[in-house]
Amino acid sequence: MRFQRLLQMRRLATSATPLMRAPTQTTTTSMTVRTMAGSGAPMPELTQITDNVQRGNYATLSDKDVSHFEKLLGKNHVLTEDLEGYNICFLKRIRGNSKLVLKPGNTEEVAAILRHCNERKLAVVPQGGNTGLVGGSVPICDEIVLSLQRLNKVLSVDEVTGIAVVESGCILENFDQRARDVGLTVPLDLGAKASCHIGGNVSTNAGGVRVVRYGNLHGSVLGVEAVLANGQVLDLMSNFKKDNTGYHMKHLFIGSEGTLGVITKLSMLCPHSSKAVNVAFIGLNSFDDVLKTFVSAKRNLGEILSSCELIDERALNTALQQFKFLNAPISGFPFYMLIETSGSNGDHDEEKINQFIGDGMERGEIQDGTVTGDPGKVQEIWKIREMVPLGLIEKSFCFKYDISLPLRDFYNIVDVMRERCGSLATIVCGYGHLGDSNLHLNVSCDEFNDEIYKRVEPFVYEYTSKLKGSISAEHGIGFLKKDYLHYSKNTVAIDWMRDMKKLLDPNGILNPYKVLN
Amino acid sequence: MRFQRLLQMRRLATSATPLMRAPTQTTTTSMTVRTMAGSGAPMPELTQITDNVQRGNYATLSDKDVSHFEKLLGKNHVLTEDLEGYNICFLKRIRGNSKLVLKPGNTEEVAAILRHCNERKLAVVPQGGNTGLVGGSVPICDEIVLSLQRLNKVLSVDEVTGIAVVESGCILENFDQRARDVGLTVPLDLGAKASCHIGGNVSTNAGGVRVVRYGNLHGSVLGVEAVLANGQVLDLMSNFKKDNTGYHMKHLFIGSEGTLGVITKLSMLCPHSSKAVNVAFIGLNSFDDVLKTFVSAKRNLGEILSSCELIDERALNTALQQFKFLNAPISGFPFYMLIETSGSNGDHDEEKINQFIGDGMERGEIQDGTVTGDPGKVQEIWKIREMVPLGLIEKSFCFKYDISLPLRDFYNIVDVMRERCGSLATIVCGYGHLGDSNLHLNVSCDEFNDEIYKRVEPFVYEYTSKLKGSISAEHGIGFLKKDYLHYSKNTVAIDWMRDMKKLLDPNGILNPYKVLN
Repeated sequence: MRFQRLLQMRRLATSATPLMRAPTQTTTTSMTVRTMAGSGAPMPELTQITDNVQRGNYATLSDKDVSHFEKLLGKNHVLTEDLEGYNICFLKRIRGNSKLVLKPGNTEEVAAILRHCNERKLAVVPQGGNTGLVGGSVPICDEIVLSLQRLNKVLSVDEVTGIAVVESGCILENFDQRARDVGLTVPLDLGAKASCHIGGNVSTNAGGVRVVRYGNLHGSVLGVEAVLANGQVLDLMSNFKKDNTGYHMKHLFIGSEGTLGVITKLSMLCPHSSKAVNVAFIGLNSFDDVLKTFVSAKRNLGEILSSCELIDERALNTALQQFKFLNAPISGFPFYMLIETSGSNGDHDEEKINQFIGDGMERGEIQDGTVTGDPGKVQEIWKIREMVPLGLIEKSFCFKYDISLPLRDFYNIVDVMRERCGSLATIVCGYGHLGDSNLHLNVSCDEFNDEIYKRVEPFVYEYTSKLKGSISAEHGIGFLKKDYLHYSKNTVAIDWMRDMKKLLDPNGILNPYKVLN
Repeated sequence: MRFQRLLQMRRLATSATPLMRAPTQTTTTSMTVRTMAGSGAPMPELTQITDNVQRGNYATLSDKDVSHFEKLLGKNHVLTEDLEGYNICFLKRIRGNSKLVLKPGNTEEVAAILRHCNERKLAVVPQGGNTGLVGGSVPICDEIVLSLQRLNKVLSVDEVTGIAVVESGCILENFDQRARDVGLTVPLDLGAKASCHIGGNVSTNAGGVRVVRYGNLHGSVLGVEAVLANGQVLDLMSNFKKDNTGYHMKHLFIGSEGTLGVITKLSMLCPHSSKAVNVAFIGLNSFDDVLKTFVSAKRNLGEILSSCELIDERALNTALQQFKFLNAPISGFPFYMLIETSGSNGDHDEEKINQFIGDGMERGEIQDGTVTGDPGKVQEIWKIREMVPLGLIEKSFCFKYDISLPLRDFYNIVDVMRERCGSLATIVCGYGHLGDSNLHLNVSCDEFNDEIYKRVEPFVYEYTSKLKGSISAEHGIGFLKKDYLHYSKNTVAIDWMRDMKKLLDPNGILNPYKVLN
């Protein structure tokens, strides 16, 4: 049994200091990500043309506007050339034609920019790390790009209460490092952490691999400062876990993708970082065994369970083929699970995880695997999971879906889709956050293929809607999914969203062509 | 050392089955609460008169309206007599003069009621268990009471995902019992659990004694169905942890105290109930030691810490004097802490808590105490904490405050207030949810005393505001705190709240005279 061997390995390593994924290493991985995504794929056409987008009734940028912004921010922070990186989305699927990028350095400058744009009716797209997958952070036509890059400071971290205050343009990994310096951790972790901004994470209510433990950002974000379309600064900051003074309006800015306001600052509850982190990577013979193992993990690992991820065979094999530096500890199973525990006592956690794995093997649900508490090996296993999405876009075009489905129907759609696409697709696979009922369904082919597109959409949304699932579990609606919103929200709800938008941004200058159509 | 003796006691008891506070017992306690609060205090004057409230420009109830409602709901569910219990708040401080109580049985009936009231411009106060402490759930003038009592069903509980769907009028304890039947628990626990409704809890974003572990309701509530003032049913239900499809409007109904809509249904994420529950009740010599012990609890108990409560000497002694059935395991200390752990492995938890207490005693921070995992004893200790607020109102008038303060300044205000009130007050004390920086400051006197009132308010809010705290940590704003909202929210934020109210309830029929003035 591989488990035996690796358990021994782990025992040798448990005397190590508090385990965490070394940030320097992770930075390298994630930066690779950006490069890889940018390297192979061809430059897309302008989205306004390909998607026949009717430009909104906005003013056109004038030299006078540019001079105004130069006076306001200084010439260095007003870009009019080499804007490609700001105009194209991470997946190279959406390309806008902005002529101006503004980089304010503080809240007041953001407010002054929006005040001017609102008066002039100039459309604006707020942009963080531009790592989103639904085209929410790039211009569609000629919107001004409002980059939050310079609002990058961690303002305070209180190690007693666990509350941190941070500017919205701070890179997630840098924020997490500051928290870790005082024994805390940011309750959010995702593949793009070396580039994504915490403000973008909050604006999109980003999910990631820790939701099963720490819940979503509506629970973790304690306060928000947002600049409204008219330039008003809405101070909804709070440095407390409990604050029941009036309407909880901050939540309107969490997950509304920069269409209702621009988040400039926020406070977040950061849990203590765990003294012990263990990761199990296991192979299973059927999805039924996957489900049983998940239930067993919830029951037996309880409070120390910090991730529960699923990878199917095709997803794993694609990553292994593309990235030779990956080492998979086991092979030959149709399903793999990555289960992580984080706790305050390494011996206790080890006992719990060994018991959980022993029981699962005895019942024949877990076939083989590895379990480790060694920081380097923990990182190696996480790297496999992190590279899975990238393996699929490395040399192919990939239709990517991010859906919530009832657990009992969780994987069926992958088989159904494989059947529908037949030989047109090179790979149809599924992976994702099983612990949160969140599946990432992927359909790969050599290049964009309209026939596959028609077989996949809107079928995938109809299927999800019939099961009362969510057509966007964590990636948001952005530009790419706005025509499908009605599969998850009814007309009454969508009408009220429109009213809310009209109230907060009557001229519609904030991130147009997104979320609502 | 008492600890030694009680640790032995516990060891005898640890073979017991999964520990939880037996609901039957707790019901008795909490029902006593209602009776007690209702028994002693005299009937208050009508609030409209005492507080000189200008009645809003609403229509007056006619016989035709009553007939309309009788046709809609059936005569049994339309009350026009014996309405005292619906008109008076739990603390007997606010008394309205409603002539009509309606008890719809489903969402459609709630919608039909509001549609009629909106057309007729009849004001309405939604009412759950009526256990609030800020007068939010009773009429101020002659508003129609919309009681959610009959919407009391638990619709589903999924033991795999932990997601439960429940109608808003379900009593918290009944909901929790249904969850416990399948090994889950509702992530919310508070003294009024035998009477309060889950819909009221969500409408007020109730806190309680488990926030330190499970966070607030914005994180736990996954979906909401709310009826708007115009009778539209807004379906924002979701049975998933992740759903990023458009604006997260459900949060507008969490904590807005029934002024923006009436919650009729909700889904909630329920964690697995813990196999082991341990409680420590400890005595400390100074608030400095309290803080050190809290930091140590967070570090050493980590993921199993499920409550961290503070009670000062005066608060404890008052409860012990009033309720002879309470047994305090220790006495003679200025501060007491109740620390609870919940975990999946009794032996591991016991080891952690013993280590934590041993270290605290060795450092001289913890003086004495008791620790137990015996379900009966756990309940006995919790009963002390639960009776503390009631001890203070049993035979006295009590000014009660519920504030968030920075931990380093957490207790100072109790001393400051004691000084300010001098011999006018019989007791000035503090207790509360230390783990959430949430202090309940109490000033008792024989009967309402205007001189004390002036010494306490608005001083307590000014003091809190200077420290950037929250003037209502968990109880909400309701009627009693609406004039003080500006101490925690600035004009821009309050103006936007008004705009939000106007958008969702243009005639202002929903819970008038509350939250905003």
